[in-house]
Amino acid sequence: MSEADRRFMRLALGLAARGLGNVWPNPAVGCVIVKEGRIVGRGWTQPGGRPHAEVRALAQAGAAAQGATVYVTLEPCAHHGKTPPCAEALIAAKVARVVTALQDPDPRVKGAGHAKLRAAGIAVSEGVLEAQARAAQAGFLTRITKARPWLALKLATSFDGRIATASGESQWITGPQARAHVHALRAQFDAVMVGGGTARADDPLLTVRRFQPKRAPVRVVASKALDLPRNVLAGSLEQAPLWLLHGPDAPAEARAFWRSAGAELHEISVSDQQLDLESALQALGTLGLTRVFCEGGGAFGAALLRASLVDELIGYTAGLALGAEGRPGLGALGLARLGDAARFELVESRAIGGDLYHRWRRQTHA
Amino acid sequence: MSEADRRFMRLALGLAARGLGNVWPNPAVGCVIVKEGRIVGRGWTQPGGRPHAEVRALAQAGAAAQGATVYVTLEPCAHHGKTPPCAEALIAAKVARVVTALQDPDPRVKGAGHAKLRAAGIAVSEGVLEAQARAAQAGFLTRITKARPWLALKLATSFDGRIATASGESQWITGPQARAHVHALRAQFDAVMVGGGTARADDPLLTVRRFQPKRAPVRVVASKALDLPRNVLAGSLEQAPLWLLHGPDAPAEARAFWRSAGAELHEISVSDQQLDLESALQALGTLGLTRVFCEGGGAFGAALLRASLVDELIGYTAGLALGAEGRPGLGALGLARLGDAARFELVESRAIGGDLYHRWRRQTHA
Repeated sequence: MSEADRRFMRLALGLAARGLGNVWPNPAVGCVIVKEGRIVGRGWTQPGGRPHAEVRALAQAGAAAQGATVYVTLEPCAHHGKTPPCAEALIAAKVARVVTALQDPDPRVKGAGHAKLRAAGIAVSEGVLEAQARAAQAGFLTRITKARPWLALKLATSFDGRIATASGESQWITGPQARAHVHALRAQFDAVMVGGGTARADDPLLTVRRFQPKRAPVRVVASKALDLPRNVLAGSLEQAPLWLLHGPDAPAEARAFWRSAGAELHEISVSDQQLDLESALQALGTLGLTRVFCEGGGAFGAALLRASLVDELIGYTAGLALGAEGRPGLGALGLARLGDAARFELVESRAIGGDLYHRWRRQTHA
Repeated sequence: MSEADRRFMRLALGLAARGLGNVWPNPAVGCVIVKEGRIVGRGWTQPGGRPHAEVRALAQAGAAAQGATVYVTLEPCAHHGKTPPCAEALIAAKVARVVTALQDPDPRVKGAGHAKLRAAGIAVSEGVLEAQARAAQAGFLTRITKARPWLALKLATSFDGRIATASGESQWITGPQARAHVHALRAQFDAVMVGGGTARADDPLLTVRRFQPKRAPVRVVASKALDLPRNVLAGSLEQAPLWLLHGPDAPAEARAFWRSAGAELHEISVSDQQLDLESALQALGTLGLTRVFCEGGGAFGAALLRASLVDELIGYTAGLALGAEGRPGLGALGLARLGDAARFELVESRAIGGDLYHRWRRQTHA
């Protein structure tokens, strides 16, 4: 693997990131086509998941694709879906070499794309910047391997981990830049999710504001009895889809109200008097979501952690203390021992406005 | 002010930092002597506060000091203390120019050093990198202007702000690198302080371990009734001084025990049934401390925050969640409104081992 291969793959990964949050249920792929050291085509998965990155890059390259090297962050597809397979398009364009970061774990591809290219006499190099590609495509990979979306849990707290004063005052702990950053993050996820408690307490809109996302993230609210405030959520259905996860006992009247308002209802089984969160997440995976951004509340976040469903922690820490009587950011976890707590690895941290932003990924166990 | 002036002052500030924690009650000063663009002398305040930085740098420069430019992070002293004044030493060495970052607020100096130099025909430039020097010498300046030491409050917590599980298990939330970093920080402070609750719960040694400090930080324990565990603290008096702050009602037996063990006892007045913390900090200032590192516990830290005595927050955040039943890092603050909370400004943040280190300074109000 040459330094040039890594450099062009890094560019392709940068392009791939543009699709995050707006290509589900498809993976966000990036593609760079290089001829004699010059980039002749660039592409990334388009909003909604099509056209694929390779198709866009080939269209830009035109005849220059012949004899070129193609860098693509995921194995090109080999199956006839809603579009002809990218592997065939690359063969038809007579490219000389294809460099990929990852094999596609989708059982319909899984090596078949690479094999098809090789059978056509194209040189194939696999695994270039594989670890970075795996991290970037964690949502897509989690959906394939665990049948659920990648889940990030956000907590914006004081220095001492509180999300509000004792009286419930929480506006504003973090500053305007951090709050704008949350909106930018929302746009990189397929869905924004909260528990019913937060919906009742904050009556949130859950949309991306301050700028226009390419595709509005789905709003997901988990509420066993569908006892949710109605005006704000039901009044904003033209802005973003609303999916409600509820239990089998949710009242018919509430179901009828939300259905007629335009929300999608999804019934989830109940265990221990609570929505079964593993089932809930699997339902979201079946519906196509690859990346879900959970913004609380404390009880819901704690339940997700207890069920080992949290892949990423996203923290915003503000420079003030609220004290022990402030409201905690997370509910009870029921840990018997410190060693039972899941460990997360620091991925990045930086100042955003006056606050500290930090992101952690769950450590994978061998 | 030239770029060269700033560059050499930055070097002098770097040298000054070597004295932090081991020069109290003196300021940690750095000095660089430059002749024809080359550094001919460097010095910094020595452990215990003497010799001063200028004296060390002049000794290194020898005859080369004649006609040279001297960069010093604080106005040279002008009064006869335990050593002759540095201003006179600079005049005797026939230096051509003196560049300083800060006027010395000590009433015995306060411009007299600069004036003495100018009267001898030496060119003087003041205020080079003043803001950086002010931050670096915050301990010394706080002692002069507020008659108490600069106080940093440390909190090592889980992602959700907890310092132990419900059962009290706290070993180890942060990793070995972060714990080693705490020892390095201790060495940069004049004293390490805890409340009696933490002393009773953890029976800590409060010394610098893993490496040898130039001067062991004083250990300060605040305990109204002097009801402290005795073996560890009294058994380590050859390693570091132990100062005990107690109330007027502390039992004679306890006073006698600690005095005979070699601890220094300081009686502090009581208000609202608690040690008066403002008086306690002023007593520490009178005793010469300029920088105090408080490591808890939660009730003591909260009391210091309530009394507006905390200048700096130092956080270590670990990548795990302990949940609402975990022990909070800070006790109650009694804030009526969010706007009443003191705001702190992020100074630095970085990964240390697997943990996130972050440091905040209290915002000064105009």
